[in-house]
Amino acid sequence: MTAPETLEGWFALHDMRVLDRAAWQRLTSAEREKAIAEVTDLLAAFERVDDADEGRSVTYAVAGHKADLMMVHLRPDVADLQELERAFDRTLLATAMSRPTSYLSVIEVSRHGAPEGSATNIEQSPYIQARLRPEIPEHSRYVCFYPMNKRRLLDDNWYSLPPEDRMELMRAHGRTGRRYAGKVTQIITGSMGLDDWEWGVTLFSDDAVQFKKLIYEVRCDVVSARFAEFGPFYVGQRVEPGQVRRWLGE
Amino acid sequence: MTAPETLEGWFALHDMRVLDRAAWQRLTSAEREKAIAEVTDLLAAFERVDDADEGRSVTYAVAGHKADLMMVHLRPDVADLQELERAFDRTLLATAMSRPTSYLSVIEVSRHGAPEGSATNIEQSPYIQARLRPEIPEHSRYVCFYPMNKRRLLDDNWYSLPPEDRMELMRAHGRTGRRYAGKVTQIITGSMGLDDWEWGVTLFSDDAVQFKKLIYEVRCDVVSARFAEFGPFYVGQRVEPGQVRRWLGE
Amino acid sequence: MTAPETLEGWFALHDMRVLDRAAWQRLTSAEREKAIAEVTDLLAAFERVDDADEGRSVTYAVAGHKADLMMVHLRPDVADLQELERAFDRTLLATAMSRPTSYLSVIEVSRHGAPEGSATNIEQSPYIQARLRPEIPEHSRYVCFYPMNKRRLLDDNWYSLPPEDRMELMRAHGRTGRRYAGKVTQIITGSMGLDDWEWGVTLFSDDAVQFKKLIYEVRCDVVSARFAEFGPFYVGQRVEPGQVRRWLGE
Amino acid sequence: MTAPETLEGWFALHDMRVLDRAAWQRLTSAEREKAIAEVTDLLAAFERVDDADEGRSVTYAVAGHKADLMMVHLRPDVADLQELERAFDRTLLATAMSRPTSYLSVIEVSRHGAPEGSATNIEQSPYIQARLRPEIPEHSRYVCFYPMNKRRLLDDNWYSLPPEDRMELMRAHGRTGRRYAGKVTQIITGSMGLDDWEWGVTLFSDDAVQFKKLIYEVRCDVVSARFAEFGPFYVGQRVEPGQVRRWLGE
Amino acid sequence: MTAPETLEGWFALHDMRVLDRAAWQRLTSAEREKAIAEVTDLLAAFERVDDADEGRSVTYAVAGHKADLMMVHLRPDVADLQELERAFDRTLLATAMSRPTSYLSVIEVSRHGAPEGSATNIEQSPYIQARLRPEIPEHSRYVCFYPMNKRRLLDDNWYSLPPEDRMELMRAHGRTGRRYAGKVTQIITGSMGLDDWEWGVTLFSDDAVQFKKLIYEVRCDVVSARFAEFGPFYVGQRVEPGQVRRWLGE
Repeated sequence: MTAPETLEGWFALHDMRVLDRAAWQRLTSAEREKAIAEVTDLLAAFERVDDADEGRSVTYAVAGHKADLMMVHLRPDVADLQELERAFDRTLLATAMSRPTSYLSVIEVSRHGAPEGSATNIEQSPYIQARLRPEIPEHSRYVCFYPMNKRRLLDDNWYSLPPEDRMELMRAHGRTGRRYAGKVTQIITGSMGLDDWEWGVTLFSDDAVQFKKLIYEVRCDVVSARFAEFGPFYVGQRVEPGQVRRWLGE
Repeated sequence: MTAPETLEGWFALHDMRVLDRAAWQRLTSAEREKAIAEVTDLLAAFERVDDADEGRSVTYAVAGHKADLMMVHLRPDVADLQELERAFDRTLLATAMSRPTSYLSVIEVSRHGAPEGSATNIEQSPYIQARLRPEIPEHSRYVCFYPMNKRRLLDDNWYSLPPEDRMELMRAHGRTGRRYAGKVTQIITGSMGLDDWEWGVTLFSDDAVQFKKLIYEVRCDVVSARFAEFGPFYVGQRVEPGQVRRWLGE
Repeated sequence: MTAPETLEGWFALHDMRVLDRAAWQRLTSAEREKAIAEVTDLLAAFERVDDADEGRSVTYAVAGHKADLMMVHLRPDVADLQELERAFDRTLLATAMSRPTSYLSVIEVSRHGAPEGSATNIEQSPYIQARLRPEIPEHSRYVCFYPMNKRRLLDDNWYSLPPEDRMELMRAHGRTGRRYAGKVTQIITGSMGLDDWEWGVTLFSDDAVQFKKLIYEVRCDVVSARFAEFGPFYVGQRVEPGQVRRWLGE
Repeated sequence: MTAPETLEGWFALHDMRVLDRAAWQRLTSAEREKAIAEVTDLLAAFERVDDADEGRSVTYAVAGHKADLMMVHLRPDVADLQELERAFDRTLLATAMSRPTSYLSVIEVSRHGAPEGSATNIEQSPYIQARLRPEIPEHSRYVCFYPMNKRRLLDDNWYSLPPEDRMELMRAHGRTGRRYAGKVTQIITGSMGLDDWEWGVTLFSDDAVQFKKLIYEVRCDVVSARFAEFGPFYVGQRVEPGQVRRWLGE
Repeated sequence: MTAPETLEGWFALHDMRVLDRAAWQRLTSAEREKAIAEVTDLLAAFERVDDADEGRSVTYAVAGHKADLMMVHLRPDVADLQELERAFDRTLLATAMSRPTSYLSVIEVSRHGAPEGSATNIEQSPYIQARLRPEIPEHSRYVCFYPMNKRRLLDDNWYSLPPEDRMELMRAHGRTGRRYAGKVTQIITGSMGLDDWEWGVTLFSDDAVQFKKLIYEVRCDVVSARFAEFGPFYVGQRVEPGQVRRWLGE
């Protein structure tokens, strides 16, 4: 098959950290105060995108053991994202944290995803531009992130399907997603050549049940039932910079 | 296929911890006393559901190396569950523990699971309400928790079966479960979009042999033989808050 | 299929520990003496089954990196086994050990495994009783433990075979095992609903080559060639309580 | 099938390290200064190939949690590469680093990859010699490394294809790669018998989006869609020896 | 199928260790001197087989992150090998090392591998005796070790092939190996019932490229292309006891 034509926008880094509570408690009370102030300022600077011409940054507290903090960064280049990692690494809080995982990808928009009639000069279309450099719905209470592949397994090989079958399946798949318009917002990123799965999906909602309902419906689409392989799911709630102290329980 | 219609109740967190015996022994005797009192009080508060309008919490001591403590929490929202995690994280005992795993899900009841004739206003039915916000059989001596998937593998793809086949298989599967009525109680939670498997199953019994007999029978049902993928199994016994000291061997 | 009828006896815990040599060396000479005496006494108490009405306990030194010590415990209930874990956890030696793995299961005897003519009152048969609450051949020099599954993979699904095929295959499989009578003794435990594989197999022999020869023959049986999935293998030699000092090299 | 005839050049080691920020901060300011000077000198010596008659060395800062530093070394023999590992291991910085992964391989050129007409004395051809002992495009800003296999799975077994099919597929695959000439440079290394995958692929570009576009196109080739298995992807940016201080944030 | 008849010789332990450079540096200079002298003496004693009636021991420095030291021991019984592990565990150097992996197996010679005409009294044949208790080519510069399985996957099930097909395939496979006579020496060990794969293969050569060429050719044999599953590969160079100081960089 021929690779679908895509447009790429900002690069994305999902940067996850786990707090070592014993290491945190070994800090003196004054050090903990310093650490909280330092991270509060840094996350605020990330959100204001002080470090680059453009981009977005939002932070979440992840439920369960997989991570404590997930910073979602969008920036124009990989080097910009690496600056953010290093800035966080240098904080006092980071010395009491480990790094269980992360995900590097780039915002991807299919040329077929553009509204009809916009096929000429699609790159200049404001609709496409807004998707390539999107807002993060930072007032949504919950986030859900997971990586995924299209399966390539014997008779269930997505990349061996005739293009018209793939397109029909993706259209049905898209209809499922659209039934959640207003309830769930999503950002799709491509990660072939960048990380270990083919795509990343980041969902935002005020109601965590919607993640479960959406994924259940999606799983029942033919495109996912036969062809989707899902990586780990990370669910978290929004933590604003000023809420770091409370999140740390100090 | 169309996703089965489901109703969702409380969210569930299975929060597991492993005790680092060397770290525990490094605490002074007075610190250990303080830690025991603190955790005893906290687990009692969890069980009284002091932290939320409604919910349930019960704690178990897990057999084997996979975990030492498993707290099963049911609460109305994910944010409530995250408060519980953080409250435990802040205890002195938690600084001597690591966190090998956890599981986030939400109680799920199929609309097809309702008694016949109740199809109208099913959500108001007391039967359904009791299943969405269930009692945990806290006086049962043993618990068994495991996550599972319905398989999507080439010819063995649950989600590609005709709906009538799926329903017939689920009915036979249900008959197996009902043969254990009075011996084993179960709570089914859905975890698509929330954690790494599709469902969580939590079983309660006074006799651990029943877990083995039930799962053996289930495995021989067509629905499980061909279509079930099982995650790790965690078996534990009930630890009441007042038994923490004894459980810690102090 | 219908689940085969089984009888269950004692529960089993294979409790494995790895010694952290650096932590051990950090203990003072007096602490090491105390630790040796304490563990020697505890293992002796385990072997005398001081802690329960009935059961068996034997300890092995495992070859290679997977574990250093494997305690095999048989006891009437899961709670009994958890007491043993906790008793070991509280020793000084345990604070210099980690716990890479463990296995929880229950002795399982098939009703079809009983001698012909014994079908009535099989549970009272002394033969069956001896298998449900067996001796551990504690004077055998070597042990081999591994967990296993019957495969459920597309056309190779054990649980989808007609019962008469399964029984014929199991009979042939049994004949292989019986050729090792006098050379290798085995205890079969079921672990569905208790741990992550379906069965545990514990072999005992004075000659470790017999483990290899037996498993090679077994692998060539149709039942194993097509249907068996093997977990990790643990091989060890018997350590009597009085040999702990020597095993620790003190 | 008969193994394709290949020529081998330099051995390659992709040597990755993760910085333990807490350990780094525990060093005194003077120790950190010493560590920076020491590593700056060592990486410069690596790049000058002071340690061997010939070869190449370039260092990258890896994005995400998988590694912090990736040193790519090419040298005539495995023993030369082991000297480089040991030289780095002995630095003060290395005592604050762990080693999550590495990859050992050898530059491999297919005899079929030579330009037409060069079939005689191919080993003497300057074109082949330059590929066996290649320049690393050290001024490219970004690197992408991943290991891969040709699949051997039931009907999708690359090694069971007729040679003419394999060659036709590889020709189409090569055409995809050539469309990126000028944008992406690649070094292919073979690792059968040396490491856990069959090949390593190291890509270089000034634009990280090109990695994603190239791999997406490659994945859609029949040769990759049906037959490629990809390992983890590592993406990094060039760090010159003089940039170590800045990379460490000192 | 009937299991092939085999003869067994010495047991083998591949004992791997990773040096923790930070722990090593924390030792005083005098302690490091003591550690070097102690290990130099111990490895020399291993090579002289002071600890048993017969056997072989050779040590290698492994390339990459998987291990630093690999000791290959051949001894008459498992208990002998366990003595060697424990002797190493008790050294000061071992307290600065971890143990990422190991492999337990036993030298295996197929009765079909004997030269024609030797079928009677094969066990007394000097040729077979030399293979059951072989020399390790200790002057070869490089070693390559990997474990492997014969595949048992649906239509690609080695153990379900007719015996004459298996024998024909093994004969072709053997011809590939023999083309490397003089360049690569090999020791085959069986590990069913002893460790997690079915066989271990240890190759020796003065030229590490030969490992790659041999495995590439082997992979293209039908027997490997369809039926072989390869575990991790470990490549190292010979370290004589007197070279330990240099290997440690002291």
